[in-house]
Amino acid sequence: MSYAALHSQQETRLATWTRGLKHSALQDMLLAGSRPGILSLALGLPAAELFPVEAYGQALTRVLASDPNALQYGPPFQPLKKHVVELMAKRGVKCREEQIFLTAGAQQGVNLLARLLLEQGSQVILEEKTYPGLQQVLQPYQPDILTVPTDLRTGMDVDAVEKLMVQGARPSLIYAIADGHNPLAVSMSREKRKQLAKLGRRYRVPIIEDDPYGFLFYGDYAEPPLRALDDEWIFYVGTFSKILAPALRTGWLVVPESLVCFLATVKEAADINTAPLNQRAISAYLDCGNLDQHLLKLRQEYRLRRDAMLRALTQQMPEGSRWQKPTSGLFVWVELPSEVDTGALLKQAIEEEQLVFIPGHAFALGEQQCAKNSIRLNFSNSSVDRIADGITRLARVLNRKRPRAMIERKIHEGVAATF
Amino acid sequence: MSYAALHSQQETRLATWTRGLKHSALQDMLLAGSRPGILSLALGLPAAELFPVEAYGQALTRVLASDPNALQYGPPFQPLKKHVVELMAKRGVKCREEQIFLTAGAQQGVNLLARLLLEQGSQVILEEKTYPGLQQVLQPYQPDILTVPTDLRTGMDVDAVEKLMVQGARPSLIYAIADGHNPLAVSMSREKRKQLAKLGRRYRVPIIEDDPYGFLFYGDYAEPPLRALDDEWIFYVGTFSKILAPALRTGWLVVPESLVCFLATVKEAADINTAPLNQRAISAYLDCGNLDQHLLKLRQEYRLRRDAMLRALTQQMPEGSRWQKPTSGLFVWVELPSEVDTGALLKQAIEEEQLVFIPGHAFALGEQQCAKNSIRLNFSNSSVDRIADGITRLARVLNRKRPRAMIERKIHEGVAATF
Repeated sequence: MSYAALHSQQETRLATWTRGLKHSALQDMLLAGSRPGILSLALGLPAAELFPVEAYGQALTRVLASDPNALQYGPPFQPLKKHVVELMAKRGVKCREEQIFLTAGAQQGVNLLARLLLEQGSQVILEEKTYPGLQQVLQPYQPDILTVPTDLRTGMDVDAVEKLMVQGARPSLIYAIADGHNPLAVSMSREKRKQLAKLGRRYRVPIIEDDPYGFLFYGDYAEPPLRALDDEWIFYVGTFSKILAPALRTGWLVVPESLVCFLATVKEAADINTAPLNQRAISAYLDCGNLDQHLLKLRQEYRLRRDAMLRALTQQMPEGSRWQKPTSGLFVWVELPSEVDTGALLKQAIEEEQLVFIPGHAFALGEQQCAKNSIRLNFSNSSVDRIADGITRLARVLNRKRPRAMIERKIHEGVAATF
Repeated sequence: MSYAALHSQQETRLATWTRGLKHSALQDMLLAGSRPGILSLALGLPAAELFPVEAYGQALTRVLASDPNALQYGPPFQPLKKHVVELMAKRGVKCREEQIFLTAGAQQGVNLLARLLLEQGSQVILEEKTYPGLQQVLQPYQPDILTVPTDLRTGMDVDAVEKLMVQGARPSLIYAIADGHNPLAVSMSREKRKQLAKLGRRYRVPIIEDDPYGFLFYGDYAEPPLRALDDEWIFYVGTFSKILAPALRTGWLVVPESLVCFLATVKEAADINTAPLNQRAISAYLDCGNLDQHLLKLRQEYRLRRDAMLRALTQQMPEGSRWQKPTSGLFVWVELPSEVDTGALLKQAIEEEQLVFIPGHAFALGEQQCAKNSIRLNFSNSSVDRIADGITRLARVLNRKRPRAMIERKIHEGVAATF
């Protein structure tokens, strides 16, 4: 049943903004992907078989045995902040412990920042295709959204951001993913980073740099994040979800020190504090100095998977398709021939091939019909063989019959009904 | 430095509501209580020495060893919902797994409900002294707050609620703590529960029943929570924080089934999902059937501590003081002689006796000056000896010199500056 229908059936009077709520494609996919027999290239899940289960388990045991406050409420764990400062240094970012704010993951980081920065109807600047979790954060504020295009090769159109600012836009925030863009898998050039950071400073606009994937780069070198260029107007959002494990629900912000006490209050209102046991166990894990090697292993393995996906795409996608080789992150963004409706394609892929992926429109803002011939494919959560198998299934669906266009709503409902 | 001053120094343009942010007395106390030498009767911390560290550690180890998805993102863990249904049955509440929504603790539960129910300026009904964490949740909505009194013997003035409704109030929510009220330590009678539940149904107003302490009752019998009386208009908020451990950051809501998909979307926006490892480990712990015995142990020990506090108060508090014997929860609310300003008393207690507690005004809504001669004392987080010692220190401060009145703001700053 659609949310609109559910809404009208509600006995309870809900806030007005909830009328615009849409079913979460990601939640559908999380459920879908966990069904036996389904091959999922849908979600940005890290590889479970690469989680440092044993080392983390040992860290947990050590902490539980030695720290009587591990299971109690507690203030942010200072040694973990120290580790985060060291981690950030590896990305070329200089920061101090006083600028670190610990969160229950990147999503919470963005959510808390939105709480502090946005009023009802605030202006924001986003790319026209962006992380759906951000759209969920913004929705209750019913913001005035200004969009800029993203080039598949060069990333966010920073000239378009500048043009908006010159024309008088004064957004409460600009949202950017400089590395391993989700869903477009592109990373920004050094020049663009500089240009964007300068705009933030010149116009005194906070730029939220969401960076869940920045540590997962596949070349020998990665550009430092935006935060390396400005310590006042770039609010950096980091997380252990992709580099250690999502279930730890622990991430961090790097923000101007004066914001930390405000964040502490909205965090307390949200969930009191970030799980003290997890903070301590992550810190104990990092104490052992294993993270560098673990990151190397992740990059190595994910690079193999990325390359397997690119190879299979090259061999099997129909003419008129295109994609870029991602230098960071967990996704390949594939544009299929323009006549393909990937919403309908997904339905067919599920029925005929037990394959799931995320159709492009799930990332488009609002009711935009853009990206209707695109899909986002994840390569981190499947073995090289499964990836090849997945692309073969995808090619079979594409070759069998070009699916007819269907309106977006129907497809949404179709997906929801299937799982 | 006060928040107002911090606000004016901010480079970043923050949302208007943040101008009203106040320093969190609870965060101050959390820090204060962790200092060596300080005797804290301030916070609602459970007793760390009673945490089932070994059994929970074993559950964690079992889950990590056997469940490859324990560290991954994941949908709500169904077996845990089943356990929650059984837990609720022990309180006399009939509910189904489809009505359970898992959260990162009670605070998040209340926060998510507020997100769904409140608009800017929505009307709400609260008691005039209530849990400060609720006030933090409400603040961004700048609600129209209608207050009702609480009687120290009989609890929430439900007649006053009815009067407001008859006069035309149509709040988006009513907030109630039926058992072990925080801070007033009172539990509602069966008649009042019935009357309140009926009001919710008659006027179709959701009543948020916040119940962190309901499982911790000290008599042979406890009234079932409000939720036992109505399955449509009572939204029950539960948590494992006080009955297992706060660091697990896991709680639940019992709500009408039709609300669950809306909650799922605001939860995803807040922090994606509740830590899958914790959900599984709690479930594994509960599988072993140890909770009943653990709860018995908690009740037994906390009863001893409560009685030690009541005994010490009887022996040492000055004439004109009064308090009730709490039947549930973790606090005793003490009204001191009317000339005592407990804000100033706290400052003195810290300086002279290294003792902290929470002065009553921290629970008063807005700028109200009520409860200025009251204090909330916690008995769960100190041994019987420490409790006796704490009350002796309190009596010494009270006897030494009646503190002079000070304006509230100054005291707030004083507390902040001391820690």
